[in-house]
Amino acid sequence: MDNKLMLMIPGPTPVPEKVLLAQAKHPIGHRSGEFSEIMAEVTANLKWLHQTQNDLLVLSASGTGAMEAGIINFLSPGDRVLVGSNGKFGDRWAQISQAFGLDTHIITAEWGKPLDANAFKQALEADTEKAIKAVIITHSETSTGVLNPLEDINAHVKAHGEALIVVDAVTSLGAYDLPIDELGLDVVGSGSQKGYMIPPGLGFVSVSAKAWQAYEQATLPKFYLDLGKYRKAAAKNSNPFTPPISLVFALQTALQMMKAEGLERIFARHARQKQATRAAMRAMGQPLFASDEAASPAVTAVMPQQVEAEQVRSVMKKRFDIALAGGQDHLKGQIFRIGHLGFISDRDILTVIGALEATFLDLGCDGFTPGAGIAAASEILTAG
Amino acid sequence: MDNKLMLMIPGPTPVPEKVLLAQAKHPIGHRSGEFSEIMAEVTANLKWLHQTQNDLLVLSASGTGAMEAGIINFLSPGDRVLVGSNGKFGDRWAQISQAFGLDTHIITAEWGKPLDANAFKQALEADTEKAIKAVIITHSETSTGVLNPLEDINAHVKAHGEALIVVDAVTSLGAYDLPIDELGLDVVGSGSQKGYMIPPGLGFVSVSAKAWQAYEQATLPKFYLDLGKYRKAAAKNSNPFTPPISLVFALQTALQMMKAEGLERIFARHARQKQATRAAMRAMGQPLFASDEAASPAVTAVMPQQVEAEQVRSVMKKRFDIALAGGQDHLKGQIFRIGHLGFISDRDILTVIGALEATFLDLGCDGFTPGAGIAAASEILTAG
Repeated sequence: MDNKLMLMIPGPTPVPEKVLLAQAKHPIGHRSGEFSEIMAEVTANLKWLHQTQNDLLVLSASGTGAMEAGIINFLSPGDRVLVGSNGKFGDRWAQISQAFGLDTHIITAEWGKPLDANAFKQALEADTEKAIKAVIITHSETSTGVLNPLEDINAHVKAHGEALIVVDAVTSLGAYDLPIDELGLDVVGSGSQKGYMIPPGLGFVSVSAKAWQAYEQATLPKFYLDLGKYRKAAAKNSNPFTPPISLVFALQTALQMMKAEGLERIFARHARQKQATRAAMRAMGQPLFASDEAASPAVTAVMPQQVEAEQVRSVMKKRFDIALAGGQDHLKGQIFRIGHLGFISDRDILTVIGALEATFLDLGCDGFTPGAGIAAASEILTAG
Repeated sequence: MDNKLMLMIPGPTPVPEKVLLAQAKHPIGHRSGEFSEIMAEVTANLKWLHQTQNDLLVLSASGTGAMEAGIINFLSPGDRVLVGSNGKFGDRWAQISQAFGLDTHIITAEWGKPLDANAFKQALEADTEKAIKAVIITHSETSTGVLNPLEDINAHVKAHGEALIVVDAVTSLGAYDLPIDELGLDVVGSGSQKGYMIPPGLGFVSVSAKAWQAYEQATLPKFYLDLGKYRKAAAKNSNPFTPPISLVFALQTALQMMKAEGLERIFARHARQKQATRAAMRAMGQPLFASDEAASPAVTAVMPQQVEAEQVRSVMKKRFDIALAGGQDHLKGQIFRIGHLGFISDRDILTVIGALEATFLDLGCDGFTPGAGIAAASEILTAG
């Protein structure tokens, strides 16, 4: 059956019909008053979603472009940075730091385990000369389904006093309570195809006053991703370069939907769906890759027993037209990942679990009572 | 009357209905076989449109991002470059070159006049040490409606033998015969919201074998715009970072339409519409900003007599809901610009000229016989 794909990957995530159709509106001039009004509305609503009064800049770029902007605008060649890495995206920020000639100190943790906040504490306390200019971490590590202890690491950065904290919130923003101003996060990057419920193509960066001070001193070369240009244009509800107009239309509609739902309900929905997914996997005897304490609100990674991860993905796709994500890099073939991020209803969670039950049974998994996954998920989804 | 906007600006350009609707298809996974097939088709068709067998890379970026990629991937700090500048975009490439620490020699011409190929000849012939690493020029200067003498400048670059030629073809590609391989153009950048008939958000860069040799030596820092990563992914019909899927769907449909029309007819249509627009302006006594020999196929700039340029734009918008572009930088208020680029039919040209006639008359221009504009345009449009 054609045209029945169900996306349960951690990006691109499902897009509501009215957001899809918003893209189909004919473009208008990006220097028109009408477009400025849309930029003003969208920026105000993004600030609401990001819980910040900081500058909130919209780039024509992927999440990686947003994160690169978040790094190169505030640093100079040779600057010392601490990068946390326990997955593909932490690795990527380390690669960016190295590509731009930063003195990159990497604090690693095993893939599937959270970063150790104490390792950051020690490194920051040892830095009595205040040479560390930034701490760069991934909040929700999409490749492993791990949520890193941002609050704890941030507290140590604040105790250090000098370093900026630069956060990849690509799969946590819009899924998890991340009060940027309350936490004092200096630079937060994210991408549109995640919690924002729209297709890929827009990157977002929020920038604190402290980060803007660092910007004034930073000498890494930049032009297209020079956030100063975006700030100047944003002050006039405009863009330094032609923005992806159809995606901005989509964002306008999606943010209106998110405001109608409300932050508390959005975060509660993601938490509930994460718990239901995890409970169902446990009830079906399938090991979760991340611990409960470090589980991402956006994606659940499973290291399956009795079956191959790629077999599960293959049957889910062929038999039920549900796309799950596989493992990346050395985890390829070791895990599969269920996205529960963005425009996902409780019904979707029951659907994917029902299909996983059928798939496990089809593949000969006999370690669970048929129906156990749905029973466990239902209990959580109906508890509220 | 709402929802009747007619875009006659040089980008974003009008988008066909089926291209608009292609964006509204639900995203699919960007690592899926289905998406790889689309990337393969789109890349093959882009190579057809660009008349090249060079690598053709698709970025999630505006045209400026594509041009930055076209500059920073092939050069090192301190490298000498010649930049042609006779408008806002030439200025921008000079700014990028300077931002990245290149030894930037700028050959200027007055805004509204084409670059002087002889000035490039002299600079290149004087460079007996072959220190010039690249010549960077804008083909169609969108800000003034001038088409620069690319073929002549390119011949001098070829005679030099060492320098790469890097071309901004943002408003010439898809509007003008630009045979990249026949001319041996090393790096050509463009953007989706122009001749490609889709909304903004995608940038394109073609890269020659000679440019890839330069890439191996180039030391400017890069990551998000590192074209080596795009080449590696493109070899597998994939993308290094999440691509704007809905815009790729749009591009697929638009390129199918362009193939059905055929290159010769596309170029002939743009040439005819340019001539008709210019003839109509002349017939209405309105001075053209660029000469016939240097007229862009994409945009006609008019420096109006008896009326203010901004008055013309204002009446055209308020009375007829037609968006024309204004002047940029020091030309603000001095000129208006009519876009005739991409999905523009002969009917659209008659429409905009008819509305301009009415506008000129409304504003008290009495230097022409009413109907003269349409008469002049009709003669050209029906001559074929």
